[in-house]
Amino acid sequence: MSRPKLSFRSAVTQDLSTLVALLADDAVAADRESAEVLPTHVEALAAILADPNQQLIVVDSEGRIAGCAQLSFLPGLTYAGNWRAQIEGVRVAPALRGQGVGHALIEHAIELAGARGCALVQLTTDRRRPEAVAFYERIGFVDSHHGMKLRLKH
Amino acid sequence: MSRPKLSFRSAVTQDLSTLVALLADDAVAADRESAEVLPTHVEALAAILADPNQQLIVVDSEGRIAGCAQLSFLPGLTYAGNWRAQIEGVRVAPALRGQGVGHALIEHAIELAGARGCALVQLTTDRRRPEAVAFYERIGFVDSHHGMKLRLKH
Repeated sequence: MSRPKLSFRSAVTQDLSTLVALLADDAVAADRESAEVLPTHVEALAAILADPNQQLIVVDSEGRIAGCAQLSFLPGLTYAGNWRAQIEGVRVAPALRGQGVGHALIEHAIELAGARGCALVQLTTDRRRPEAVAFYERIGFVDSHHGMKLRLKH
Repeated sequence: MSRPKLSFRSAVTQDLSTLVALLADDAVAADRESAEVLPTHVEALAAILADPNQQLIVVDSEGRIAGCAQLSFLPGLTYAGNWRAQIEGVRVAPALRGQGVGHALIEHAIELAGARGCALVQLTTDRRRPEAVAFYERIGFVDSHHGMKLRLKH
């Protein structure tokens, strides 16, 4: 199987329904996501597009959305005052899994973080995705922290 | 020992040197922090103060800084488009540890997250702080994720 041709761009408003469906099409996240576009999704995308410290990356494969990831640039006094980049909401379209799309997407996010001068790229991955730790370790991430979550709304 | 009287406020520019010293006064973070104020610290605090989605919480105990934590409000398409709140850079002044300051600080951050309508509060804690997991679990956090980090600068 040849590797799909990929390009990266920032999300636009017209991508919303495809991205929402992609984020919901996931065994671990299914219980908390909606495949239908909600008003909260519309507001969230507007907030992301209006904020230069938020970037919603879309992977394009021959005109189709092959994946997505959100990159947040966070100022902070830790790490000697350097910015950190955080990756959330990583998904690859089911038909394109196992073809290096996720790897290319994360490498692209790391490049963007480097270009912004970030000292650190961070993410959390659910313990129910045991294969994800090895995936991120191959890219260079270190599993050095506990990722703790407190739900306020269900 | 009586519990110190605590109040919470947002950091101001005049707090910078105290906060930088407090963040560096930590066994786990010592190798990556500077106790002296660097230009990056000045820029980071300015970025935090200018961004309504960043809040640097200072704990005041009778006019002294007893602790700090940064709260970041993150828009996103995950969690059905709800905002999430993230806590970073939690520190309690050495002289005031073991007196409930950290617990009160995290509870305050959770209240702020709830007031902003966040669906989730999240943080990562270094595996070299094994006592921290139980501390956060007592407050209600679930150790559900791996926290993975990739350093771009040392």
